[in-house]
Amino acid sequence: MNLTELVRLSLEEDLGHGDVTTEATVDAEARGGARIYAKEPIVVSGHAAAAEVFRQLGCAYTVVTPDGAFAGGPNDDTVATVTGRRRDLLVGERCALNFLMHLSGVATHVRRVVAAAPGLRVVDTRKTMPLHRALEKAAVRHGGGQNHRFGLADGVLIKDNHIVAAGGITAAIGRARAHAHPLLRVEVEVETLAELEEALAAGADDVLLDNMDDDTLREAVLVNAGRARLEVSGGLTRERLATIATLGVHRASMGGLIHQARWVDLSMRIS
Amino acid sequence: MNLTELVRLSLEEDLGHGDVTTEATVDAEARGGARIYAKEPIVVSGHAAAAEVFRQLGCAYTVVTPDGAFAGGPNDDTVATVTGRRRDLLVGERCALNFLMHLSGVATHVRRVVAAAPGLRVVDTRKTMPLHRALEKAAVRHGGGQNHRFGLADGVLIKDNHIVAAGGITAAIGRARAHAHPLLRVEVEVETLAELEEALAAGADDVLLDNMDDDTLREAVLVNAGRARLEVSGGLTRERLATIATLGVHRASMGGLIHQARWVDLSMRIS
Amino acid sequence: MNLTELVRLSLEEDLGHGDVTTEATVDAEARGGARIYAKEPIVVSGHAAAAEVFRQLGCAYTVVTPDGAFAGGPNDDTVATVTGRRRDLLVGERCALNFLMHLSGVATHVRRVVAAAPGLRVVDTRKTMPLHRALEKAAVRHGGGQNHRFGLADGVLIKDNHIVAAGGITAAIGRARAHAHPLLRVEVEVETLAELEEALAAGADDVLLDNMDDDTLREAVLVNAGRARLEVSGGLTRERLATIATLGVHRASMGGLIHQARWVDLSMRIS
Amino acid sequence: MNLTELVRLSLEEDLGHGDVTTEATVDAEARGGARIYAKEPIVVSGHAAAAEVFRQLGCAYTVVTPDGAFAGGPNDDTVATVTGRRRDLLVGERCALNFLMHLSGVATHVRRVVAAAPGLRVVDTRKTMPLHRALEKAAVRHGGGQNHRFGLADGVLIKDNHIVAAGGITAAIGRARAHAHPLLRVEVEVETLAELEEALAAGADDVLLDNMDDDTLREAVLVNAGRARLEVSGGLTRERLATIATLGVHRASMGGLIHQARWVDLSMRIS
Amino acid sequence: MNLTELVRLSLEEDLGHGDVTTEATVDAEARGGARIYAKEPIVVSGHAAAAEVFRQLGCAYTVVTPDGAFAGGPNDDTVATVTGRRRDLLVGERCALNFLMHLSGVATHVRRVVAAAPGLRVVDTRKTMPLHRALEKAAVRHGGGQNHRFGLADGVLIKDNHIVAAGGITAAIGRARAHAHPLLRVEVEVETLAELEEALAAGADDVLLDNMDDDTLREAVLVNAGRARLEVSGGLTRERLATIATLGVHRASMGGLIHQARWVDLSMRIS
Amino acid sequence: MNLTELVRLSLEEDLGHGDVTTEATVDAEARGGARIYAKEPIVVSGHAAAAEVFRQLGCAYTVVTPDGAFAGGPNDDTVATVTGRRRDLLVGERCALNFLMHLSGVATHVRRVVAAAPGLRVVDTRKTMPLHRALEKAAVRHGGGQNHRFGLADGVLIKDNHIVAAGGITAAIGRARAHAHPLLRVEVEVETLAELEEALAAGADDVLLDNMDDDTLREAVLVNAGRARLEVSGGLTRERLATIATLGVHRASMGGLIHQARWVDLSMRIS
Repeated sequence: MNLTELVRLSLEEDLGHGDVTTEATVDAEARGGARIYAKEPIVVSGHAAAAEVFRQLGCAYTVVTPDGAFAGGPNDDTVATVTGRRRDLLVGERCALNFLMHLSGVATHVRRVVAAAPGLRVVDTRKTMPLHRALEKAAVRHGGGQNHRFGLADGVLIKDNHIVAAGGITAAIGRARAHAHPLLRVEVEVETLAELEEALAAGADDVLLDNMDDDTLREAVLVNAGRARLEVSGGLTRERLATIATLGVHRASMGGLIHQARWVDLSMRIS
Repeated sequence: MNLTELVRLSLEEDLGHGDVTTEATVDAEARGGARIYAKEPIVVSGHAAAAEVFRQLGCAYTVVTPDGAFAGGPNDDTVATVTGRRRDLLVGERCALNFLMHLSGVATHVRRVVAAAPGLRVVDTRKTMPLHRALEKAAVRHGGGQNHRFGLADGVLIKDNHIVAAGGITAAIGRARAHAHPLLRVEVEVETLAELEEALAAGADDVLLDNMDDDTLREAVLVNAGRARLEVSGGLTRERLATIATLGVHRASMGGLIHQARWVDLSMRIS
Repeated sequence: MNLTELVRLSLEEDLGHGDVTTEATVDAEARGGARIYAKEPIVVSGHAAAAEVFRQLGCAYTVVTPDGAFAGGPNDDTVATVTGRRRDLLVGERCALNFLMHLSGVATHVRRVVAAAPGLRVVDTRKTMPLHRALEKAAVRHGGGQNHRFGLADGVLIKDNHIVAAGGITAAIGRARAHAHPLLRVEVEVETLAELEEALAAGADDVLLDNMDDDTLREAVLVNAGRARLEVSGGLTRERLATIATLGVHRASMGGLIHQARWVDLSMRIS
Repeated sequence: MNLTELVRLSLEEDLGHGDVTTEATVDAEARGGARIYAKEPIVVSGHAAAAEVFRQLGCAYTVVTPDGAFAGGPNDDTVATVTGRRRDLLVGERCALNFLMHLSGVATHVRRVVAAAPGLRVVDTRKTMPLHRALEKAAVRHGGGQNHRFGLADGVLIKDNHIVAAGGITAAIGRARAHAHPLLRVEVEVETLAELEEALAAGADDVLLDNMDDDTLREAVLVNAGRARLEVSGGLTRERLATIATLGVHRASMGGLIHQARWVDLSMRIS
Repeated sequence: MNLTELVRLSLEEDLGHGDVTTEATVDAEARGGARIYAKEPIVVSGHAAAAEVFRQLGCAYTVVTPDGAFAGGPNDDTVATVTGRRRDLLVGERCALNFLMHLSGVATHVRRVVAAAPGLRVVDTRKTMPLHRALEKAAVRHGGGQNHRFGLADGVLIKDNHIVAAGGITAAIGRARAHAHPLLRVEVEVETLAELEEALAAGADDVLLDNMDDDTLREAVLVNAGRARLEVSGGLTRERLATIATLGVHRASMGGLIHQARWVDLSMRIS
Repeated sequence: MNLTELVRLSLEEDLGHGDVTTEATVDAEARGGARIYAKEPIVVSGHAAAAEVFRQLGCAYTVVTPDGAFAGGPNDDTVATVTGRRRDLLVGERCALNFLMHLSGVATHVRRVVAAAPGLRVVDTRKTMPLHRALEKAAVRHGGGQNHRFGLADGVLIKDNHIVAAGGITAAIGRARAHAHPLLRVEVEVETLAELEEALAAGADDVLLDNMDDDTLREAVLVNAGRARLEVSGGLTRERLATIATLGVHRASMGGLIHQARWVDLSMRIS
């Protein structure tokens, strides 16, 4: 589902057969402007969705603080402005803010996390709100993080269940290599150093080291000896990231980049 | 958008043109079972969505711990079981867990909030993830909260922007009463006691007292003298709820019931 | 389904894979104008749909006689004018007229009914053509009537089947009050004065008096004594409405406002 | 749009985000039966739509009086029976009845019209409720009438606007013959005998005689001398049909078969 | 499905969640132009689809060599030009070329076939790529061929299976005549001269002579004696068409007009 | 668009508002069986689509010769059998055969091509019929070929236009590496050995050698010295493939695998 459709359905969800309050109290042709502003310090994300909300309602949306920039300080809280029929401003307000408050919440959270580990590539996962993945992954980038594969179709990531089903790490890697198209790397999730060695021997391109403590990770880097690219995942806290950043792995992945973020506070004032 | 469509599109988002890993490593006809379990104490919510995910994939989903019940203790962590083609179990895993982790997160958070104010009716708002409102409002009920109106079409709630547009509280209430169908009550948001008095004189059915401190709320209850039903909103913390519960208002509304909840941790293990 | 979609599908229904007659006989780039006019006295309704038909075809639609106004007298029969590619005028003609003839038929019929009972609030019901409810309810307003709830989601109306299922009027009202959100009034349908008394004792906000004769209605008003708002329904003819208007009830509801209306006669002439 | 989609959207229109009354008052798992019956004498039509309504809700629908048969006499008023979850019976009731009351209204009206002119082929037109054409055309057949072309794609019918655009009757027929595929006959609408002669000379397969009085129709039949098939249309009343039936024309077309029909009265009782 | 939808889905098919190469390598706001040209001699078809591809991407598409004209000679290979954001040019390139290469392939092939039999009406069949029928039928016209019926709804063509089901040719024709609307001719497929005679006696409007050799066809024309229109089909090669053209039949139908065509070679160069 | 939707729309394309011939000539409840058979030697492909056609019509489809196997010899021409309502068999016949004839045509063509170069990995491209890519890529596998990336989202392939836009091969590779997620390899298209050297120096994972003759390809293999994987494309004929197979490149890609295939001949006979 593309953004146009996502926003169309989102407006429909809130609007139902009509906004009874606005239709009653606001003249049909009255026009006006509005200002969207942050009520706390945030990293902005979500303009694409908010702009689409108002575009579909026939309003003009102007970005003031772009995605990825800070807003919410004492002198720079304006995030965007909108002009149009006053009825349409009111109909779109909640829907646009719901996107902005969630996505800026993600970007703000990511910014804090990556700040804890300069030089470490921190990537997201597929733990995302259904139908909001593309927007959330953009918010991760706005926050300074990076993305892992988008979904099940654009990357091979062999997990324990696949290994069991295929009859072992070596078999699983072989089957994946034969099936996947030539431009996909093959990543395998391992939980022990023994599994790491099997994965390397079988020619894995990337290895996800799941739930290992720092000492085991250090040993894994030695075992690997530059053969595959290593990804760390599981049990990662902001505090641990600083250590991870020193280990020489390729990246760390954290679902919580997205799902542990809370909404930040934005408001819209109509003039 | 109904649940069938929401789930269909959510699966499509994750699946794209196919799960390259699973197609490669899991035999097409192999069947199996899976157990979905909580890795921390939670109030469960989201079975409708998770069951629909697996139903669309041809798997059978059995609820073990129903919506609204606790799971995640040492002896009772199973939330649901699933059986079907092993490929389908793997394809549906992430999507189903994304629903369950988010919605159980909401229910768990709501349970904590309402526990802080026994006897107080705590209701949600329209600050919800686009396209997930019906599920999130159900999660609020599973957590022990109650729902406010669903959207713009099934309730009249006159806010400051409407008041300005209509030319005052009295005019706005009159216009809303004339326009709305006979089964809708008319609620008005006020910020001062003077506005409350005007709203009451104009015959408001419900009044939302926005951002008032406890003393002002106490006075508002006296001013009202039982004429309208009073709703408290804005600046509510879990701590303040206990006090609110003693004031004699009809209800308190909190957007944070939903948007300040974080995902809880669930996993799926295939057997 | 919103109006854009309703019209898109309606055009598709009529057009199929193409208008073979027009493609053959009208040059692709020829442009022209058209006049839509009433061939009998009518109250106009349906401009939103007709305009959308021509908008989707790339034509410009100009309202001459607005919704709710009279047309069809000897000197004022023009309802709207259209300009565009002549092919598109011909392709849209039937579809636009089908909307206008039906909806103006409803508005014209409603105008006659409400004229019979000055001062009485006459409302519609959910007996509407599937997918045309929003347009028909607008036509009721254009004719001078008022709307009842839109559908099953924006109003509580407890009918006999609900009462039986809930185990009585008192139980049904209690369950509805607990379940519905705070801004919905609770209406109950009753057939006898005894049922009316039970409904009032249980705190019904509105009571629908079904199929009562005038004397019983008079007694119901006395029994009610201003507690609930009363709605009269069932067996209503235009003649009876004048009497109903004198009884002191809140409103009368008639499905026939919409479903007993016939199409009125409009035509389009291309210049 | 096929029937499945029409019914799905129609249910969605009425149901919105949920039936608040039924959810409150009827237990989720209670099952029951219902009887749909006629409250006046009718020719039944609409089973396909009503059955689809209940099928989509998971209920079983059984036809008692089939499409095209009479119902509503003292001993045979049952039209169909339904069984299923009681909630679903209530949710589907209004939608199913809206289809049945309208379509049986059409069939009943058509039966009266065609009874006035035994032996005359009476056909419908494209004056139909948008999105209900297939159902209404079936209702015409259930009433004893016949169908004209379905829409703009499956028949060539050259009207005055096409003639003007093409530069005359002869040119229009020639262009239509060259453009249309080989299995489509070419019909032309004429208003005078001179036009009829031109149409015949140009090789029209069928001629629509628009708004002619009985004497002119008689002369048209003589002029035609069996060359084209003749269709009479415009200004047709039930009374005039008996005369038309004696003139030797091929058929009469009446938009009012459908759009002058009113809903008949049916009800559903739950047991 | 109309062209807008066909193209929207086709772009979605190729684009998925985004063009990773273009997003990485091309600046978001860079603009440019492109030239689409033929790398071999072709008859052009497909501008409607290609233009729609670029229109949906916000680019401007200009036809240089129109549908039905030759391109690909040494001095006139440009088919169209496009301007817009460079990213959008690249995103649309493959999808637009896929339409043009296929449809121009059809038009080019048809041109060769019809050139073999001047004066013979050569028509297509329903053997078309699913969802591409309207475009392929237009390509047939661009190549100089003509169209048979579009699909199952706009023409009666009785084949052997229908004849068996109806109980014989005469019965099948009678049932078809009674059921079909008045503007549809009735065509019957026959394999022998005996069947032809039965079809003619039963009043068939058109007869499809299936898989007959030239001598049998000659005799069929004599048997028919001008009563029905004759269509030849089955086993037709380009060589045989010249003979068919001399026999006096109404038309020849060939599925291979479309399905034996190969893509021709076009390319797009960005400037 | 998934297969269910593709087939639903394809049936709708052919069926329109109904199959007038079948409705007229075949009794509504008559049931029967059918056999789908090859009229020439083929490699079968398309069962998924054909089965879905009949499933949506309520018929049972049984595979006799599976995808990838030969059919059409003197004793083994049956491809599948179907049973159901005879009307539904007839309605689905053309649509199912259109899928099977096209896809088996692709598989048959691919089998011939790959047979010419044993040991060479031959892959397809994105030159596919819009909306049929997944089916055509499956047909390539059934024929013995392999797939390249599915679309723009699941692989990085830098072409000349990207190189120009990015400012050179080195810049383009760097930008792609930074933007793409970690599991995507980066492929670059080059036309000269100098470009190959630049691509290798910049760390390309794969290099597409476009339109090089055999000698240049040999030199490219030497230059590469095992650093990147090499793909040959452009100007490939079946004859050249045997030579290519000996050069030591990783794969050859050919759009013509799909778009130069013609439909093969299958038929359905109803019993």
